[in-house]
Amino acid sequence: MSFDVYPIGHVEKTGDITRIRVERRYCEALLNLDRFSHAIVLWWIDKRDTPRDRSTIVVVPKAYGRIPEKSGVFACRSPARPNPIGHSVVRVLSIDMDECVVVVDQIDAYNGTPVIDIKPYMPSSDRVDGATVAPWFDNLDPRYTS
Amino acid sequence: MSFDVYPIGHVEKTGDITRIRVERRYCEALLNLDRFSHAIVLWWIDKRDTPRDRSTIVVVPKAYGRIPEKSGVFACRSPARPNPIGHSVVRVLSIDMDECVVVVDQIDAYNGTPVIDIKPYMPSSDRVDGATVAPWFDNLDPRYTS
Repeated sequence: MSFDVYPIGHVEKTGDITRIRVERRYCEALLNLDRFSHAIVLWWIDKRDTPRDRSTIVVVPKAYGRIPEKSGVFACRSPARPNPIGHSVVRVLSIDMDECVVVVDQIDAYNGTPVIDIKPYMPSSDRVDGATVAPWFDNLDPRYTS
Repeated sequence: MSFDVYPIGHVEKTGDITRIRVERRYCEALLNLDRFSHAIVLWWIDKRDTPRDRSTIVVVPKAYGRIPEKSGVFACRSPARPNPIGHSVVRVLSIDMDECVVVVDQIDAYNGTPVIDIKPYMPSSDRVDGATVAPWFDNLDPRYTS
């Protein structure tokens, strides 16, 4: 059994500008996204959509100044995973409904990467205060603080 | 063009217990997830995987005590959307590596729902302090506060 996922747009990086360019037929799906400061972007890690990467189960995660332990791919953000879905929280800078474009501050995906969903960031369900992480990730700086 | 997504497990709700039961072959992918307090679960909104729901672009979102404006599906958490991917932040209560089971506090998905990815919640990239939302969502209580 498998499910079909279709690109709804792609990442566009030109100079310092990062955009999500949404396909024409989904343009109206952006209506009122400009009322949110942040969004969750799901994207397809297309460069890692290989049989080998998709059957990778355990990795040594990248850590920054810490010593990581071997971890399952569901316990880290490895791009090699059974379903290569990338997850990024981004700041919504502006939306051009004519061009079907969302300008964002950054995204950890290459230019041209297929985007498969955009969701508004809802602090009520998406923000966790006091979350704890494995010690090899405990020195990472938060990206969005008020 | 489309991408293939495979279930890596499913939601199991029995009595008051909510579990993510992971398929045997992915069991090791849970290694060290117990070092994190919370996880992001991506699931397939299988009951809304219909041509009609997948071509829904604009909806009136459910609001609670506010008057919502018509919104694009990328500006709300509508289950009708081009790719019916559900996104839930959950508390990791315990993990049974022998049973390939993650016990969680809750998930906004039915018993039997296919799960397609699990990621550890990383405050550094996933927590946004001071995020703002459309006014029809501004009275929702945060689920996870310290």
